[in-house]
Amino acid sequence: MKKLKSLERLEESFNKLPSIGRKSAERLAYSIIEMSDDDVKEFSDALQSLKSKVHICPICGNITEDDICEICKDEDRNQAQIMVVSYPKDLIAFENSEGYKGLYHVLNGVISVSKGKGIDDLNISSLIERVKNNAIKEVIIATNPTIEGEATGIYLSKLLSPYVESVTRLAYGLQMGGNLDYTDSLTLSKALEGRTKI
Amino acid sequence: MKKLKSLERLEESFNKLPSIGRKSAERLAYSIIEMSDDDVKEFSDALQSLKSKVHICPICGNITEDDICEICKDEDRNQAQIMVVSYPKDLIAFENSEGYKGLYHVLNGVISVSKGKGIDDLNISSLIERVKNNAIKEVIIATNPTIEGEATGIYLSKLLSPYVESVTRLAYGLQMGGNLDYTDSLTLSKALEGRTKI
Repeated sequence: MKKLKSLERLEESFNKLPSIGRKSAERLAYSIIEMSDDDVKEFSDALQSLKSKVHICPICGNITEDDICEICKDEDRNQAQIMVVSYPKDLIAFENSEGYKGLYHVLNGVISVSKGKGIDDLNISSLIERVKNNAIKEVIIATNPTIEGEATGIYLSKLLSPYVESVTRLAYGLQMGGNLDYTDSLTLSKALEGRTKI
Repeated sequence: MKKLKSLERLEESFNKLPSIGRKSAERLAYSIIEMSDDDVKEFSDALQSLKSKVHICPICGNITEDDICEICKDEDRNQAQIMVVSYPKDLIAFENSEGYKGLYHVLNGVISVSKGKGIDDLNISSLIERVKNNAIKEVIIATNPTIEGEATGIYLSKLLSPYVESVTRLAYGLQMGGNLDYTDSLTLSKALEGRTKI
């Protein structure tokens, strides 16, 4: 007996997700058979809805369901500070820690030879324009504490320092080699507090 | 900034899948944002299509896209042998091994106190009817070698033995290609117990 076509089809989709291998994809596809019709419909609708409703904020590169994201619209935030993060989930981690009230800029990755991500693939030119055209005093680099994250930070620091008073990076309160979005809120706050010039 | 609603909605769906926790669900939902529109549409369609096309074979309990599954329809298979498995994926594992040419019966689980699965929740009554009404000579119990799988096997054996010549179960022993010194002592004892002439 061959595997059912509709099962194979779904397995392929699951297999495209990060860290879902062939065996996990098979398991997940089977589990869908046992799910209620309502749950599967909801899952299917949620997938499409996310893709149709969510887009990138033209100012900062964050994800949003509106024209411009909530943070860029918020005039109460410190308009002279920009924190540069790799991904929207890192931004949310900081928002949850509640220690930062400035603006953000989302790179959508870091410079990475292994993943073939170069400078042009990142949201960098809009960051430079933003820093040039606004009264930004400080840019805080908050890339992951990995080699690639660090390298991206140093590169950005060189690019941006002519236009701002200071470019800082998060203190090494972070665990080296760790993931920013897995870090607890207190550690995130401490890292923000101890940021140093680069 | 609160997490986007459409993102949270998708996270909840991912979170309902087996072995996908809150953090993994978050990661997977974010990864959907970066997927191409076509891939997400395909994923969404595949989910719905699986649910609408796949149903349970009324004879054996296997999953199928037809009225009756491919195996039950196949008259070339040994009609006097039924292998009882817990899930359709176990059946596929045996089909892939190409060593069995009889029929199957899928229980859809095992008797499990911890999961609240009783006799009535399994596909057992149809198995008894099937064995009573057909010229079945042998029923092979192929549940997992766990306490619950064993208990289910023993229970079925008592139920079925009045109607068939023999109820058998799969041999226990060493895994092919495995390492003897990595094999647990219970398996070693079973392998010794079931030794055969060479």
